[in-house]
Amino acid sequence: MAQAHPDVLPHSEALTADWSTASVPDTDAAELEGILSSAAGAAGPLRDTDSAARAGALRSVADALDGAADELVAIAMVETSLAEQRLVGEVARTTGQLRMFADGLDEGSWMDIIIDTARPASTPPRPDLRRFQRALGPVLVFTASNFPFAFSVAGGDVASALAAGCPVVVKVHPGHPQTSDRSAAVVIEALATAGMPDGCLALIHGQEAGVTALRDPRIAAASFTGSEVGGRALFDIATSRDVPIPFFAEMGSLNPVFVSSGAVAARGDSIASDYVASFLLGLGQFCTKPGLLFLPRDHGLTDRLVDAVRGVAPGRLLMDRIHDGHRTGRDALASRPGVRTLVQGDLDGRTAGGTLLLTDVATLCSDPADLLTECFGPTSILVEYDDLNEALAAARLFPGCLTATVHAEAGEDFGTQLLDELSDRAGRLVWNGWPTGVAVSWAMHHGGPYPATTTPEHTSVGMTAIRRFLRPVCYQDCPQELLPDVLRDANTSGIPRRIDGRLSTDDITRADPVPT
Amino acid sequence: MAQAHPDVLPHSEALTADWSTASVPDTDAAELEGILSSAAGAAGPLRDTDSAARAGALRSVADALDGAADELVAIAMVETSLAEQRLVGEVARTTGQLRMFADGLDEGSWMDIIIDTARPASTPPRPDLRRFQRALGPVLVFTASNFPFAFSVAGGDVASALAAGCPVVVKVHPGHPQTSDRSAAVVIEALATAGMPDGCLALIHGQEAGVTALRDPRIAAASFTGSEVGGRALFDIATSRDVPIPFFAEMGSLNPVFVSSGAVAARGDSIASDYVASFLLGLGQFCTKPGLLFLPRDHGLTDRLVDAVRGVAPGRLLMDRIHDGHRTGRDALASRPGVRTLVQGDLDGRTAGGTLLLTDVATLCSDPADLLTECFGPTSILVEYDDLNEALAAARLFPGCLTATVHAEAGEDFGTQLLDELSDRAGRLVWNGWPTGVAVSWAMHHGGPYPATTTPEHTSVGMTAIRRFLRPVCYQDCPQELLPDVLRDANTSGIPRRIDGRLSTDDITRADPVPT
Repeated sequence: MAQAHPDVLPHSEALTADWSTASVPDTDAAELEGILSSAAGAAGPLRDTDSAARAGALRSVADALDGAADELVAIAMVETSLAEQRLVGEVARTTGQLRMFADGLDEGSWMDIIIDTARPASTPPRPDLRRFQRALGPVLVFTASNFPFAFSVAGGDVASALAAGCPVVVKVHPGHPQTSDRSAAVVIEALATAGMPDGCLALIHGQEAGVTALRDPRIAAASFTGSEVGGRALFDIATSRDVPIPFFAEMGSLNPVFVSSGAVAARGDSIASDYVASFLLGLGQFCTKPGLLFLPRDHGLTDRLVDAVRGVAPGRLLMDRIHDGHRTGRDALASRPGVRTLVQGDLDGRTAGGTLLLTDVATLCSDPADLLTECFGPTSILVEYDDLNEALAAARLFPGCLTATVHAEAGEDFGTQLLDELSDRAGRLVWNGWPTGVAVSWAMHHGGPYPATTTPEHTSVGMTAIRRFLRPVCYQDCPQELLPDVLRDANTSGIPRRIDGRLSTDDITRADPVPT
Repeated sequence: MAQAHPDVLPHSEALTADWSTASVPDTDAAELEGILSSAAGAAGPLRDTDSAARAGALRSVADALDGAADELVAIAMVETSLAEQRLVGEVARTTGQLRMFADGLDEGSWMDIIIDTARPASTPPRPDLRRFQRALGPVLVFTASNFPFAFSVAGGDVASALAAGCPVVVKVHPGHPQTSDRSAAVVIEALATAGMPDGCLALIHGQEAGVTALRDPRIAAASFTGSEVGGRALFDIATSRDVPIPFFAEMGSLNPVFVSSGAVAARGDSIASDYVASFLLGLGQFCTKPGLLFLPRDHGLTDRLVDAVRGVAPGRLLMDRIHDGHRTGRDALASRPGVRTLVQGDLDGRTAGGTLLLTDVATLCSDPADLLTECFGPTSILVEYDDLNEALAAARLFPGCLTATVHAEAGEDFGTQLLDELSDRAGRLVWNGWPTGVAVSWAMHHGGPYPATTTPEHTSVGMTAIRRFLRPVCYQDCPQELLPDVLRDANTSGIPRRIDGRLSTDDITRADPVPT
């Protein structure tokens, strides 16, 4: 548990110790009981904190993480084999994300305040109804392998749950336990200094502790970022509890990219090199990695694609388990009938390079279950199509995806028709761009139909990720002094509220006030 | 299936035929396949209808149902044993609900439009992101026994799904098959006349057809109103599919009412008579029926309560199954140690009268699993408490409820503390009122933690019920002409949109437009 390892190893050792094999002991039953009990105890006090105080706390956490960035990045480099520049950027993304949630808390719309004033003369008489969203309770977050900061101890799931006012128990990913422990020490101290209640964040290590926590009645919701197999197993546990809980799993995606003939003619070379840069970014260890590139059969870009893949240096993947999983998945794809290997990535020792496979739509249509399987890591498939109808037929094969991308030129039917088809299957539609890089903003939707996620209506990135950890409570005919501040007639915080069906930041003036 | 029985029996027979035993054949496999295929076929066309057209269609359905109200009420009276006045009111509530969704569609906030304009100079550069909510796909609705109109073929689930742009397959409740078939004929004709695509509404009869449909990959979400046992069984099916789907079950509630000493002193008599009127409204066949009334031990209201219960005429419950279930549930409660029967309802033949049981908090605390079991029908329990701490201890026993009610006077701690405790357990908190009667409006929340519902974040009544049947789609850097109208720069419909974090009905003026 995090509190037991506030300063596991001093910074000076971070660069020499073999962090990747220095394991952290699994959380035992007694520690877990203490953590769950503390989280349950923190639920009321944290829920009742002023949202401005929580916003301040999130900003303090962001500042503290920025201050500890050098140390955290050094640990993460050893544990994850990710490059320094990438990790520095990821810390900045993580602290920017915390500040976004703080700003969102201040803006206030997250409470989704809806007020219908009384209409005693209507048939039947309508009472005064005032509704807002409030914290759901303790949240269990299963963190990701591939983002030791942005989807980890201070990542989007944790930030959105804390913003909502929910205590968080973090099940640490085994790929970066020391980074997680050290991050937690920073975060917990910042939260405490900012006046947040004890127990609003704690870490657990080990699969058994994670599953036990997921089954515990004190946990009100859980989130997960990782593989379909892992996410589904945990979803099944969450939904089969005596009291089922919402389980928000983001389980990766195939992220197809469809390129028209017009786009190839206009900018084929840059499409080829940008595609390779996107699928080999971070050695393909992104849930938004483009897994399949659809090109017209006469594209003429094979040599350029092969050269570009060969031009990216091999590297070490996040973990041995991921390395082995990538090799197995890549070899399974490469061995399917009708699939050719254009470039075989270097797999000496622990390093992996880019692999580019080639097939066509006819093969894909004959073998969709095997070929439409995500291969996490530096492998992608070039798929050749004959015409628009074949491209559309291929699009219809896809299960739910986080993203789908179309490259086309103005006036081509291709773009309109593919976008329409893909809009049934993806959460985010990218036009003439690439799916890697997920902006952290209000409008982002990082989600999609199953198996991209278990909850197609929710995102795990962006301000609206907070909605996962809230539920409505409606007050009927309640006197002003017993209402939460934000539901009273006077709108002292200037929060947008829906009053009698219309959005407004005004106070409520009632001719016939509810008696108190 | 509905289309096969457009005019099952003419109106003249409605009052003489034994509707309650005139069964409708179960939907067979071939019919079901046709219905699911039509629903899947309608998904794209219905999703793509203009929301103003759908609003018009909902209003046409409302007008048609109002026009057919006499006939529908006559059939429902025989099938459900509910009184004419109640059913006339329920049709009005149902058509009012359809018009509310129509008005909500026109207002536009349901699309939850969020636009973040491009920030090419930021690190990393932010693309143009435009998100809205769109239809999830075909929805399966399991209708309720106790509302042959408002939670049935044209009820809230169906209205909100159609408003969202989702085709609906209705699994008819066996308690009112003829009412359902006749309603469907009216609704389907009105939808067709309003230009809605074929297949956007169909009925199925029979449990096997319902379960088969729930397992079908063409169904994208399902809703249910009924018992905890039934709802949980269907939830388990929905979540264990290869592709799990959202399952929105509203499964009833205990709806406790807590009354302070001050309230008893100030208005004990009216509390007693209003409580009895609320729990015996419709012979207790409401999911918001107050199942337990907590009174201070020295309340002195027993005689008045007993007289009030005896003053309500016994009547016939909705179905034999419900009659038998009520008797079994009531007898189980009455036979628990420490429970006394104050009034035993008449149970001659097929009629049931009000039953009032008596116990105290100590008994409740020693036997919560047995005593905190909903008894659907005309039974409620009076529970005596000694002091505020006992009342709070009792409140903490409750599982998730749709509602919880507090009666107290200004200045009493009782109200503040009970409201706070109950806010963790209920979707709607009623002050000095009664939970029966669920206003259909923007702010209503008819939901709550499990087992009140399977999805604590959603309501099945009120405008926001539409959110169950939508999912976000986000367009990244998409040219204006390929965007849905409502996401383009010009806000021709005047819909509220969140632009760069702020709510606005303005057009977007961009210095650096996305190239098209």
